[in-house]
Amino acid sequence: MQAYNVFKDLAIIIISAKLMGILARKINVPQVVGEIIAGLIIGPSLLGWVQQTDFLSQMAEIGVVLIMFSAGLGTNLKDLKKTGLTALFIAFIGVLLPLIFGYLLCIAFYGFSPLGSPDFYKALFIGVILTATSVSITVQTLAEMGKLKSKLGTTIVSAAIIDDVIGIIVLAIVIGIGTGSQDTSIPIVVLKNLSFFAISLVGGIVMYKIFKKIDSRYRHTQRIPIFGLSLCMALSYIAEKFFGVADITGAFVAGVILCNIRDSEYIERKIDINSYMLFGPVFFAGIGLRTNIQGISGEMILFSICFILVALLSKIIGCGAASKLCKNNLSDSLKVGVGMMTRGEVALIVAQKGLSVGLIDSAYFTPVILLIILSSVLTPIILKMLYNKDEKSLTA
Amino acid sequence: MQAYNVFKDLAIIIISAKLMGILARKINVPQVVGEIIAGLIIGPSLLGWVQQTDFLSQMAEIGVVLIMFSAGLGTNLKDLKKTGLTALFIAFIGVLLPLIFGYLLCIAFYGFSPLGSPDFYKALFIGVILTATSVSITVQTLAEMGKLKSKLGTTIVSAAIIDDVIGIIVLAIVIGIGTGSQDTSIPIVVLKNLSFFAISLVGGIVMYKIFKKIDSRYRHTQRIPIFGLSLCMALSYIAEKFFGVADITGAFVAGVILCNIRDSEYIERKIDINSYMLFGPVFFAGIGLRTNIQGISGEMILFSICFILVALLSKIIGCGAASKLCKNNLSDSLKVGVGMMTRGEVALIVAQKGLSVGLIDSAYFTPVILLIILSSVLTPIILKMLYNKDEKSLTA
Repeated sequence: MQAYNVFKDLAIIIISAKLMGILARKINVPQVVGEIIAGLIIGPSLLGWVQQTDFLSQMAEIGVVLIMFSAGLGTNLKDLKKTGLTALFIAFIGVLLPLIFGYLLCIAFYGFSPLGSPDFYKALFIGVILTATSVSITVQTLAEMGKLKSKLGTTIVSAAIIDDVIGIIVLAIVIGIGTGSQDTSIPIVVLKNLSFFAISLVGGIVMYKIFKKIDSRYRHTQRIPIFGLSLCMALSYIAEKFFGVADITGAFVAGVILCNIRDSEYIERKIDINSYMLFGPVFFAGIGLRTNIQGISGEMILFSICFILVALLSKIIGCGAASKLCKNNLSDSLKVGVGMMTRGEVALIVAQKGLSVGLIDSAYFTPVILLIILSSVLTPIILKMLYNKDEKSLTA
Repeated sequence: MQAYNVFKDLAIIIISAKLMGILARKINVPQVVGEIIAGLIIGPSLLGWVQQTDFLSQMAEIGVVLIMFSAGLGTNLKDLKKTGLTALFIAFIGVLLPLIFGYLLCIAFYGFSPLGSPDFYKALFIGVILTATSVSITVQTLAEMGKLKSKLGTTIVSAAIIDDVIGIIVLAIVIGIGTGSQDTSIPIVVLKNLSFFAISLVGGIVMYKIFKKIDSRYRHTQRIPIFGLSLCMALSYIAEKFFGVADITGAFVAGVILCNIRDSEYIERKIDINSYMLFGPVFFAGIGLRTNIQGISGEMILFSICFILVALLSKIIGCGAASKLCKNNLSDSLKVGVGMMTRGEVALIVAQKGLSVGLIDSAYFTPVILLIILSSVLTPIILKMLYNKDEKSLTA
């Protein structure tokens, strides 16, 4: 009966995220960075005014789903077709390199472990944590700069989506073999993923036709964004519940299904208002909230630094090189690499899974959380710098 | 780690509420009725697809706060000044009559109990449950019909707000005397309520000046609705936490504070989008969700019918007569009476409080829930009929 307590948390989150967001923009840094740092300030790391609660996590989950739905709605299907193969290649290399380098990092720290031994899987699991790109912060940054719907933006978002799927398959494989469990065997996981996309394709065409019919009759009415939002929620749920695919992937697919109807921009606008008013700040500040930077041991700091360096560089080099091989120029390839280096809630979920099956220790949460914060803060700053540099050289 | 489960609930709630809302409008009944019935259908009463969860209750709480904030934003202060005394009188009579009739109902059912006996306070408490009008459904209905900002709409909303405050004072008095507790003594409760409004007045003027300054510099920017929303959340929290005043009263006051800035309509629009997309359906369907109409004993049905009749008629007669005495015509007075007869979450909270201090039995939850549903369904239908009749006689 103390439902009113959420209002304290929300009031503090909304106002501090917005104020820090405004401050961030003043010093030419994307708003999201300000919002994440706001979470750090009001959270247990500093002031301790707001604690992460179940309610806030669920609001944050809705927030990230809305962001991905909006990104899907803004997708240009023609560009996606053009960038599809490139994105697949970038995603593949962008998973392979972090996996290998994560494993090598563990060997460097804890000594070599023979192939197939328990320590081998533990080391490999550190690599698995590093595989999945969190596209949401990159999406938000690209959207803020008006570059989300560019060809490069589409490439990055598609690659990150594919990368999530590959990452989930790798996770299932490593857990399946590493723990010898049955229900996560490789063929089943691959099959589940493939069937999700197959069913999305068929169901998506049906849904698209239904929405097109509603769309042609009613324009700019409440029902279209509301039906769109239910489709987004339904696909988020179905993806994760029945296919083991991340909910945010389902939300993105829902957006892609609707991206070609006449009112897609209208839906996007309504979703964006819901995002920036409440759910977005809760999600981004939530990243900062989730951590207590005061609780790190000296020993873990060295590992964390190397872990973060490996995480960032393996994505920049892997995805950047893959992009360069696909005939993008060096500047664009660098943007792809930086755009793909963000890690987010998926890395945390992977770490959580590894903990629950006994593959890693809870001590490894700290470097993961630090990686999420640092990559979330650095990606927007570096991306903005890269784009600004380009524009300067164009005007020069 | 199964945050995705909320997406199933939300997808079902959003789509069913909208579909039933559309259906309701087709048969000339306000949308909210459809949304409440959607909750009944998908909830434990019928299909059992969605169960009320903590998360959904908290979302619903945000929903009702947003509705009240929006109502406050749309307030015409000049009208409020004009209607203030009338509203106070309507609210006063509208509390007194249900209190007396609720007590008489209990005497009729369970026999007379001498003044000051434990049974006397139990009977009186049934009256207390009946005192507080839930304005949110009436607000939504008036808004749908475009009558919220009319003089009559303002009168009803102000009266319902004042009525809440009186209701809370009466609750505290009855609980304070009935259970002999210390911290809810009459003078303290009255003092707390008065100080909330005094502080709101002073703080409100300061806040108004700050917002006016921001408003004059930036127009139609995200920051104004976002700062407004934090003010709403903060006041909702402060009202309930420090003054024991309902959070929705705080939200309404926050709206009134901002109703005269240049961008008030802009804030209202953004809040309304958040409302109708997600929080509104969750709130209205939540009323239907919260109940299981299959679990009622035959014995309780008779009491429930009488309880509901007393509840509705005492408000219609009390508020209607008070309005007529204030020189409104008969048709408008009837609208005031019907507009004030809705009961909502406040009645449930009061019943909960009575249960927790041992004044009533949990069996009395059923008639309260039925009253909420029935009054929520009937108020919009009857109000619409009354307004339609008026317009017909005007055009005739």
